[in-house]
Amino acid sequence: MSDHVYKVIELVGSSTQSSDDAIEKAIAKASKSLHNLDWFEVLETRGHIVDNKVGHYQVKVKIGFRLD
Amino acid sequence: MSDHVYKVIELVGSSTQSSDDAIEKAIAKASKSLHNLDWFEVLETRGHIVDNKVGHYQVKVKIGFRLD
Amino acid sequence: MSDHVYKVIELVGSSTQSSDDAIEKAIAKASKSLHNLDWFEVLETRGHIVDNKVGHYQVKVKIGFRLD
Amino acid sequence: MSDHVYKVIELVGSSTQSSDDAIEKAIAKASKSLHNLDWFEVLETRGHIVDNKVGHYQVKVKIGFRLD
Amino acid sequence: MSDHVYKVIELVGSSTQSSDDAIEKAIAKASKSLHNLDWFEVLETRGHIVDNKVGHYQVKVKIGFRLD
Amino acid sequence: MSDHVYKVIELVGSSTQSSDDAIEKAIAKASKSLHNLDWFEVLETRGHIVDNKVGHYQVKVKIGFRLD
Amino acid sequence: MSDHVYKVIELVGSSTQSSDDAIEKAIAKASKSLHNLDWFEVLETRGHIVDNKVGHYQVKVKIGFRLD
Amino acid sequence: MSDHVYKVIELVGSSTQSSDDAIEKAIAKASKSLHNLDWFEVLETRGHIVDNKVGHYQVKVKIGFRLD
Amino acid sequence: MSDHVYKVIELVGSSTQSSDDAIEKAIAKASKSLHNLDWFEVLETRGHIVDNKVGHYQVKVKIGFRLD
Amino acid sequence: MSDHVYKVIELVGSSTQSSDDAIEKAIAKASKSLHNLDWFEVLETRGHIVDNKVGHYQVKVKIGFRLD
Amino acid sequence: MSDHVYKVIELVGSSTQSSDDAIEKAIAKASKSLHNLDWFEVLETRGHIVDNKVGHYQVKVKIGFRLD
Amino acid sequence: MSDHVYKVIELVGSSTQSSDDAIEKAIAKASKSLHNLDWFEVLETRGHIVDNKVGHYQVKVKIGFRLD
Repeated sequence: MSDHVYKVIELVGSSTQSSDDAIEKAIAKASKSLHNLDWFEVLETRGHIVDNKVGHYQVKVKIGFRLD
Repeated sequence: MSDHVYKVIELVGSSTQSSDDAIEKAIAKASKSLHNLDWFEVLETRGHIVDNKVGHYQVKVKIGFRLD
Repeated sequence: MSDHVYKVIELVGSSTQSSDDAIEKAIAKASKSLHNLDWFEVLETRGHIVDNKVGHYQVKVKIGFRLD
Repeated sequence: MSDHVYKVIELVGSSTQSSDDAIEKAIAKASKSLHNLDWFEVLETRGHIVDNKVGHYQVKVKIGFRLD
Repeated sequence: MSDHVYKVIELVGSSTQSSDDAIEKAIAKASKSLHNLDWFEVLETRGHIVDNKVGHYQVKVKIGFRLD
Repeated sequence: MSDHVYKVIELVGSSTQSSDDAIEKAIAKASKSLHNLDWFEVLETRGHIVDNKVGHYQVKVKIGFRLD
Repeated sequence: MSDHVYKVIELVGSSTQSSDDAIEKAIAKASKSLHNLDWFEVLETRGHIVDNKVGHYQVKVKIGFRLD
Repeated sequence: MSDHVYKVIELVGSSTQSSDDAIEKAIAKASKSLHNLDWFEVLETRGHIVDNKVGHYQVKVKIGFRLD
Repeated sequence: MSDHVYKVIELVGSSTQSSDDAIEKAIAKASKSLHNLDWFEVLETRGHIVDNKVGHYQVKVKIGFRLD
Repeated sequence: MSDHVYKVIELVGSSTQSSDDAIEKAIAKASKSLHNLDWFEVLETRGHIVDNKVGHYQVKVKIGFRLD
Repeated sequence: MSDHVYKVIELVGSSTQSSDDAIEKAIAKASKSLHNLDWFEVLETRGHIVDNKVGHYQVKVKIGFRLD
Repeated sequence: MSDHVYKVIELVGSSTQSSDDAIEKAIAKASKSLHNLDWFEVLETRGHIVDNKVGHYQVKVKIGFRLD
């Protein structure tokens, strides 16, 4: 990581499966327009309740990627 | 959400399965006495260790529900 | 817990499987040199991205254990 | 406040008018079922965006009231 | 704590004696209407000043209790 | 919000009128280049002082919008 | 701001009108004994409840001013 | 508290007796040069260790007082 | 403190007497295996409730000591 | 700053020289694609250790710039 | 530090040289009107950007000094 | 970092030179008894004031190292 500069963006991924899957969803989306994705950090885990169960998880993540 | 007021309560759910399941446990309990459950926010994830493994996850959540 | 003193250490576990599994990895490692592990608290969930997916989860946990 | 014990609850008020009005909405709702409301603390100000304007403010407040 | 769900409420106890006593005052009040009180966490210690001394301590605590 | 991914950006709006208006200013600016603006969260309220009055409010907000 | 040193003080302004007005009240008071007031930062918004309405807003602010 | 402005200062009191007494020490000192002391808030409790015991407690407090 | 390096460890002391005594218990334990204990910082005060009273205080502290 | 809206982005600069230089590296990179850079705020200072020395500093900064 | 009370003030020092020098500037200014300066704590490091470089560092510090 | 577990310890390094040098001092000390030092994170920068200048910087860092 010695000479690089990284940009950090913030996304909210959502998933009906699991909180881990919501992270994957956010990363998958980011990868469609960005290269060199390097790491993520979870900021916040929340979600909506539907019929007294978790309807979907919403995980806010920071994603860091290397600038060329 | 325009005209409503929501109340937010704090519960700790526990599960031997997973941290996600501990959230479900808290929501299921809340739904027994409350209506209109709307969202949850994870505040803290912790748990007890039994025989050098996670014995059970304890997840502290805020749960928001609409007041009539 | 009445008369005891507990020590709290900080570890980062990593797993290619799930964030819960990363917690288990940290606890398993701690148990090799320490006795009386009692509880854990999640401080931070992050990870590396490989090929536009979560390469591995890295979960920073505090682990508390009873001093004899 | 010398001998009293106070309970603190958490509500989210919403208003299309202003963030201050969202606080009033939460207090008005609380006053329908509780007596001796004493103070409020703002925890979080957010809201939804509709047609590129603030659709309504959502203010999360703690409300303290004296227990008899 | 394996299968249980806990509710967490927030109280402010006050005492002219000490900050520890303010915690006791809050717990004593909670015990009049709730069962199975399990733990407390101190959130904030403050108080009023009267005649250039602590008039009374006000300690905001979370109190957790097991839901049946 | 079930299948969507949201991006969250950070803006500082300023207004000579009010802190609420500074939020509107930030949203209005964001709407010129972005679609599907969904929610905002206030991070910080500050401002400059001119002639011993608030010269203008500066409100730092996060704005979330749905990615197509 | 290049060569200057600024002092930052903390005040609580109160107003029966609005939270913005409570900020103005604090600044007005500060200006009676201090010069070169430069900026403010809101730390905390709270208030007392009177007759089930906001009796007055209390806004804790930091105020920065240039030292000569 | 309706029309007043309060100033908040920060002191560290120390005591060989107890953490509560360190608060009293800070208030006693403040009262020598200030009037209308109204409330305190504990920010931080720490201290020095002497001969494997608490040598003295050091409690950092904010103290609020009414400006005339 | 000019040339030294200090290590900081985290302990939880418990006491049926008082929160201050829980700090002493943690320091006493630390002193059995470590030298040059220098300062402590309180991170968290909590405890268990037994028979509607504080059963014991649990105070999480950081303890700093000089490395030789 | 009266009528402007500012955008705030997050970058991580790295430098083998110093933590201040890592800030400069992040700003230099940002300036290649953005105009009107106005201020920075340090969020986090960390780095990698190589051969028991700081290999390079990594400083996470927010950078604010005026939108036209 | 056993019997003393300390006051803590907040200053922002600025420097075109380095973040460390901004701390020195704040201390130098404080020393012109105060005696017995004892310690400082860095609260926030930020600065202005001029010509795509750090124009000057602004470091907000708390400075503690012993009251006589 | 895929299969490893890391331990994180906390040290305070001090230096009369600079805040960066205080980090180096902490790392140098850690390296005398530990292997595989991997990264550091700055938690807190403070110091003592001597003769109205920084006497020495004290930087509290977390240091992470790989467990075998």
